[in-house]
Order: sequence, then C-alpha cells, then structure tokens
Amino acid sequence: MTNTPNPLRDPRDKRLPRVAGPSVLVLFGVTGDLSRKKLLPAIYDLANRGLLPPGFSLVGFARRDWDHQDFKQIAYEAVKEHARTPFREDVWTHLSEGMHFVPGEFNDPGAFEALAMAVKELDANRGTGGNYAFYLSIPPKFFETVVEQLQASGLADPANEHGGFRRVVIEKPFGHDLASAKELNDTVHRVFPEESIFRIDHYLGKETVQNILALRFANTMFEPIWNRHHVDHVQITMAEDIGIGGRAGYYDGIGAARDVIQNHLLQLLALTAMEEPTSFSAEAVRAEKAKVLSSVRVPGDLSQATARGQYAAGWQGGVKVRGYLEEDGIPAESRTETYAAIKLEIDNRRWAGVPFYLRTGKRLSRRVTEVAMVFQQAPHLPFSQTDTEELGQNALVMRVQPDEGITVRFGSKVPGTSMEIRDVNMDFAYGESFTESSPEAYERLLLDVLIGDPPLFPRQEEVELSWKILDPIEEHWATRKRIEQYRSGGYGPDSADELMARDGRAWRRL
Amino acid sequence: MTNTPNPLRDPRDKRLPRVAGPSVLVLFGVTGDLSRKKLLPAIYDLANRGLLPPGFSLVGFARRDWDHQDFKQIAYEAVKEHARTPFREDVWTHLSEGMHFVPGEFNDPGAFEALAMAVKELDANRGTGGNYAFYLSIPPKFFETVVEQLQASGLADPANEHGGFRRVVIEKPFGHDLASAKELNDTVHRVFPEESIFRIDHYLGKETVQNILALRFANTMFEPIWNRHHVDHVQITMAEDIGIGGRAGYYDGIGAARDVIQNHLLQLLALTAMEEPTSFSAEAVRAEKAKVLSSVRVPGDLSQATARGQYAAGWQGGVKVRGYLEEDGIPAESRTETYAAIKLEIDNRRWAGVPFYLRTGKRLSRRVTEVAMVFQQAPHLPFSQTDTEELGQNALVMRVQPDEGITVRFGSKVPGTSMEIRDVNMDFAYGESFTESSPEAYERLLLDVLIGDPPLFPRQEEVELSWKILDPIEEHWATRKRIEQYRSGGYGPDSADELMARDGRAWRRL
Repeated sequence: MTNTPNPLRDPRDKRLPRVAGPSVLVLFGVTGDLSRKKLLPAIYDLANRGLLPPGFSLVGFARRDWDHQDFKQIAYEAVKEHARTPFREDVWTHLSEGMHFVPGEFNDPGAFEALAMAVKELDANRGTGGNYAFYLSIPPKFFETVVEQLQASGLADPANEHGGFRRVVIEKPFGHDLASAKELNDTVHRVFPEESIFRIDHYLGKETVQNILALRFANTMFEPIWNRHHVDHVQITMAEDIGIGGRAGYYDGIGAARDVIQNHLLQLLALTAMEEPTSFSAEAVRAEKAKVLSSVRVPGDLSQATARGQYAAGWQGGVKVRGYLEEDGIPAESRTETYAAIKLEIDNRRWAGVPFYLRTGKRLSRRVTEVAMVFQQAPHLPFSQTDTEELGQNALVMRVQPDEGITVRFGSKVPGTSMEIRDVNMDFAYGESFTESSPEAYERLLLDVLIGDPPLFPRQEEVELSWKILDPIEEHWATRKRIEQYRSGGYGPDSADELMARDGRAWRRL
Repeated sequence: MTNTPNPLRDPRDKRLPRVAGPSVLVLFGVTGDLSRKKLLPAIYDLANRGLLPPGFSLVGFARRDWDHQDFKQIAYEAVKEHARTPFREDVWTHLSEGMHFVPGEFNDPGAFEALAMAVKELDANRGTGGNYAFYLSIPPKFFETVVEQLQASGLADPANEHGGFRRVVIEKPFGHDLASAKELNDTVHRVFPEESIFRIDHYLGKETVQNILALRFANTMFEPIWNRHHVDHVQITMAEDIGIGGRAGYYDGIGAARDVIQNHLLQLLALTAMEEPTSFSAEAVRAEKAKVLSSVRVPGDLSQATARGQYAAGWQGGVKVRGYLEEDGIPAESRTETYAAIKLEIDNRRWAGVPFYLRTGKRLSRRVTEVAMVFQQAPHLPFSQTDTEELGQNALVMRVQPDEGITVRFGSKVPGTSMEIRDVNMDFAYGESFTESSPEAYERLLLDVLIGDPPLFPRQEEVELSWKILDPIEEHWATRKRIEQYRSGGYGPDSADELMARDGRAWRRL
C-alpha cells in the first residue's frame, strides 16, 4: 500500500510520515457501535493516508456466526458510511485482503486457539512479524476473561523470536472507583506489563486537546501569564445536548462524574496545568500529568465545592424530551447524576489559590467542550466606570469541540467618539487555518498503538490518581437522599450556579 | 438638530453622547483637497450623528470669488461624494443654514474684519455664544500671516463676556526640523496659548490607534508580556503603494522621515511604549507620551541604524510607474528619500535593549500600517527540531489600516498524527466585531476641537521631542551624496533589509 503515491499527503510535508510497522490488529467486540462508527473507519482512513504497512491485517472476533466475507461486508458498509477520507477502491481492496474473522465466545478456549492459528497464518502469509495488538472494545466485565484466554492460548506470550510485540488496548471506564480500578489493573497486569497496556481516552486523541500542549510549550507569549499571578480561575466544561439515549444499562449507577470528569475533564485539567515536560516522550508527559493530578485537592466542604443534578422532562430544540427518571431502563428512584460540577484546587507553586471548576452534563442547551483560562480583573483601570461597563475579565478559551480552535476574549474600544470599552473575541479556527483536515481521534490513537507510542494514553498511576480525587466526592453524594432536577435544554442545576456565585464568579455562558 | 431622533445611534448606548456646544468653525483653505474630501464630509457626519448643537455654524474663508450659495453647493457635492453616513435632506438643510462664506486674501485686514462681522452676526442670530475654532487647512508658510490677522481683527481675543472659546487647529508639518518647529510654535503662541492650539495628527483620530490604549490598559493578559523580558523587538510600519502623486512641491526636500516618521510613526511608538497614564485626560496622556519620546535614542552609528531610498521606475499592479526622479516637479538631482527606516531604542526600565524598528515608504508592494510586537524565541522547546521548522516568533500585531484589527501570531499543532507545529494567526477584525461603524479620524478630531478635549492632539513638547530624534538622522543623511534606488512595487531598499539582518532579524512581510 505504501508503494501507491498518496494523494492525501500534504506535498509541503517533507518529513517522513509516522508509519506503522507490520502487525495484526485483533478487534474484540467488532460488532459493536464503536467498532462500526469509529474503529473500522479509522483503520480505513489510516490505510488511505498510507500510514499502514503492506500486509497489515485486521482480525475481527465476536460472538457472531460470520465468515470472513460477512465481516468484510460489514466493514465495507461502516467505511462507506463513516470514513473521513474519500473511498478509494484500490485501498479498500488491499485492506480487505488482510481482513479475517474469528467467531467465538470470550470464554471459549477453542475460539482463542482458532484465533492463535489465524494470526500465525497471517504472520506466515502476510509478513506481520508476530506483532499483535488486541483491542478490547467490550464491556469491562469481560476484560478478565479475555486477557486470561489470551494468556492461556499463548497469544499474550511476550516477544517471539522475531521480536514481535503484544499490546492490549482497553477503553474506559477504567473501574468505577479506586478499588475497582486497581482490581482491573491487577487483572490486566497479570498478563500484560504496564508498557504494553494502551488505555484509550479518545479525548486525548483529539487535535484540539493535543494542541493544548503545542499552545503552551511552543509559544512564548502565553507561558508568562499561565499561573496564579495572572489567572483568576479555570473553567473546564463538557456539555452535551443529548440525553443518555440507549445507554441506561451502562449509565445508571455510574453518572456524569465517573463517565466524564474522572477521565476526560481531569485529563484536560492535567494538560492545562502541568509543567513543561523534558520531552514529549510518554514517560516525561505522563510524569508531569501525574504530578499535577497528585497535587489536586477538593477544597473545603464537599457540599459547597460540588453540585449535581438530573435532567427533568422538558423541551429541547423544539422537541419534547423525557426526564432522566422516565428514560427506558432507569429505576424511578435512581439518584445517578446526569450533571456534575466540582471545584478543585491545585496545591503547587504555579496554581495555589486558583480554582479549577469542572462541569459536565447531559441535556444542556448546547454541545460544547472547552477549557477557559479566565484572567484576573485589572487592579485599576484608567478609564471611567461608564466606559467599562461592558468589560469583563480577559479569557483564553481552548475550544475542544465543536468549532475547534482558540478564542481570546479581551476588551476593545467601541468605534465612536468616546473611550468606551467592550469585550470582543479574537479567534483562531482550525478549520480555516489549515488545509490539512484533522484526523479523527481514533486514527491517531490506533496508529500510536501500532507504532507503540504511548504519550497520549493514561497510565495506571493517572487513572488511580483521578479516582482518588473522585472517590470522596462520590462517597459524599452517596449519603444524599435527594438529587436536584434541572430543566432539559437549560444550563444545569441551580446549585451549580450557586457554587460559582459563592466565589463571586459565574459559569461561562453555554 | 439634536431634537430629531437619531437613527444612527446604537440603541444599546445608554450613555449621554459627547455633543459639541454652540460654536462657529472657521475653515481657512476651504477650497483645498483636505477640506473637500475629509473636513466637510466629517462635519456633515457629525451633524448626522446628532453630535453638533442646533445653531452650529461653519464659515469658509478662501481666496475665491464665491458667495454663500457657491460655498454651500461645493460643500453639498463634497458631502454627497465623501460622507460616511447616509445623506439626509433635513440634516443637510439644518447644517447648510449655518454655512457662510467670507472671501479674502490671508493678508487682507479688510477680509478679516468681514470675518469678524460674520461670526458676530452668527453669535447674535444662531446663538453660537462667541465660541470660535479656526481651522488652518493651509500651507504652513501662511500660518504666521493668518494668526496675526486673527489677532489684529480681534478674532483671537480671549474669552468675551459670554465666556466664548478661541481655538486654532493646525495640520502637520509642524516645521521641518527642531528649529523651524520652535519658530512655528512661537508664531502661534504669540497669539494663542498652548491649551488653545490643536495640532492635528489624523492618525491619532483613527479608531485602531486609540485602541492601542484600550488594548494595553483595559486588559490584563497583555501587560505582563509588554516589556523587555518578553518582547524581542517592535516593528512599526507605514507602507504606501502610491507614489508622491501631485505633491512634488510639498514632498521634495521633506521626504519620508519628516512626512511620516516624525509624526505618525513616533506617535505610534509613544502609544505602544508609554506607561499607564493616571487617567485619559490630555495632560496625563501627553505627559506619558513625552516621557517615552524623551527616552528614545538612535543607537550607535547612524549609517548602521538608518536606511533610506528613492523609488525607481518599475511596474506596480500591472501599471508602469515612473521613478521618483522622473516625477513632475522633482529635480533630477534630488536626494529626498521616499523610503526611510530607522532603528530606535528606548532607555527606560521597560524597554532597555528592545529595538523599535520604524519604516515607511512609497511605491511599496502594498498599503499597510501596523505595529507588531515580536516576542522572544523560547529559550528551549520540548519538541523535535523537524517538528518546529515552520515555527517563528510569536507576535501581536495591531493593524491600523487597512483591514483594521488585531492579530496574534502563534504556533499551533498541524492536524495530523505527529506533533508538528506551524505558525497560525488568531484574528480580531473591527469590521466583523462591532455593529457600530468606525467614525472617520476627522469626525473624532473635529468633535474634540469643538468640545475642547485635547488628549488626541500632540502638544508642543511632543513635536519638539520628535524633531530632536529626527534632526541628527536628517543631518547625517544630508552629508550623503548618493541615495539608493529601490524597485517600485517591492519591499524597499536593500539597505533596510541589511539593517535588520545585522541584528539577526527581518522585516515582517509586506
């Protein structure tokens, strides 16, 4: 495949692309939504961009009575519907030649033997060199079974004579509290060493999230103000306008904090607040993130520093929507939160005294994920008060999605014959500034797995540190009998606004 | 006029507008280009915006055999052609009722007696209260004659029993060196006190120039990096794509440095570099500007710190254009520069060691005026060298004209699966951010004259300080027999590029 000249490569890019070496990707749970909408299209897109090696092979494993052809057909449809790059017949033909399907139950040793046979055949026929990555796109309750079967069948055995790799990819949730996260880690560690475990937090694969590091460490004009002397507070938001959809079984008992704050928002916090790593190696980046996470503290009284709520029935986008408690599969007495806000502090020299406010919720007025650094008020303004009535605090907003980019909010003179100042936005939009289109997060992450480049994957320590932050909050909430309802299509529960108001601040408008 | 509801006012603006009090504006040189293209339209626009009082009167004075009606007709045509705001019959009718013409030579006492009669009649009939502003839109050689005639006729006599004001407005050039500037000042001062003299530098009336003060002092995120610790150097550019046109008589012997650097560019430097004023009163702002200008120093060898050139014949925008020496009215041996670049340093705690590079020229590749703060390189980047090949220095650019706004240039991750960084622009555009359209500089400045609000007018001290900076450079250039030619439609003389290259820097691309 790499021999075909690639029309999608930027001709300005004189550098060698990062291309995966010969390898087999084994996809468990290949019949699921994630696989169909994200993983299979991402694999095709990588192939289309010339980033997969000749002979790259993809093995699907699932409890379906499919043959290779069925799998290829399903994958073909997924690619046609969801791939980011244009469909090219020759790329698809090459890719599908390396696609195989192994049917089986997760607890069936025979199926894993068949799998072992299949990958060895690929090694022989397609030169994949004994390099296997196992992607567990399956519910966590099956992790233990699958990794044990991988071990029992010899598939997880470390490097063979060809120096082949064995990697395992797991998706969040990484447990539901510190204890269960440790248990999960122990389970996987019994078979795979930490350096072979790739935990996917797909947010970290997003261009805009990686650009937080570029913005901070490739520039000189932001670093001097990136600290407690200039920043008043930081707001990290992931708002969704949808409800839980068909995810009741997963969501209830988990809730917004475990689903989003523990992973995405605390990772955004870590990238925003961390010190400069000595390099962008996995070890250096992860070490800095771990330092920040271990300095995070929930300040004071938990009832004052946190807020939560459940969406009530209402109207959203002109459509009548059900409340959380009326959703299919949700018990009427559920106290699971669909909105969570927490105030955190970071006890280090850079951030002491600067609150980081995190919030996430479903059925809010719009979908937006952003990190906003809000700067301090000027200690004095040499303008008259009437001239600055519409002047707020300066802010630098990293827009993760949608409308990816960066906004600086600052005061500008209003055109006219007086010195009136009003807040305006200075804007950088990814879509307008680059001819290159952004790869999907999963393209980046799958390629990193195959290359073995782990900076964008949280390691065990980070997962555990995040649960350490969340556990006391979850325990506090568990003691509460009642949970506030909030209006669908609105801005979240009143208690979240009160949390900010107590500090004399307000959430950014959604 | 103020009784008519004004459809052009922003309904969000709850503040009282700054409206001029009853007054007469006397325009000397009313037949000139400036008057027709800028002043008369600006007066109409002010009236249209409801910022002129009922009874406001405009008297034209010139060596023409016109009557009132001729003057009104000329003004009508000027307004129709050049006014910024829509033409409204009722506004024009009101305004033109207060328009009068006085014919006469500048040295004819009889004409000034007629003028005195005319304004006194206006006081009586239109309630202008003895408030007179004299706008000298005439060549400086006539200043002395006119101010003396104003004195002799009693028109310049200070405040009558009604407390009326007497103000005089003069246009650059304010002399052609320090000695002549002092002489000019002395001439005007013999009749008018400094506080009644309004020196027009129309650049200071531009929204984008005033916004330099708003940007710096209404915000908190720029001030921390606005100093020698973070700024590498500053580039102040005023590039024109036109030649000298019909201005040979004025331009030759004056040149680019006197025409542009002495006033516009040094004023931009002062606003960019000055400390925060205690208020936006004229005294406070002018005091800070004067402090900066008195700290300016031309560093080292003048032949190293300056560059100049004359445009040669060539092609511009597909049109063949003449060189400066072939322009009508330019002597073949002229050594007047049409391009000037100088390097300045500011000897104070904030700016010591930060060069300010000023350049201006005619017949360059495009028209642009901007102030660019270029920030230091990062002392270290935790990225690989190949990933940062397209990363330059961060810059904050205040775009004065055209395309008014602010740009921040910074490094961003290039979409793709590696950590490649490339320079991108974050942009704020006046035109897109405000529903209010920007008043013309002359609207603002004329209104300030009538209100008596002088912060935007340079005072004598600033003018003299600017000449003190320029005089040694002009003297140095005067000793040179040769002057470099540069290509029309290009980027200026090679020596200007060499000036930057000696410091390891480069001009921003025009």
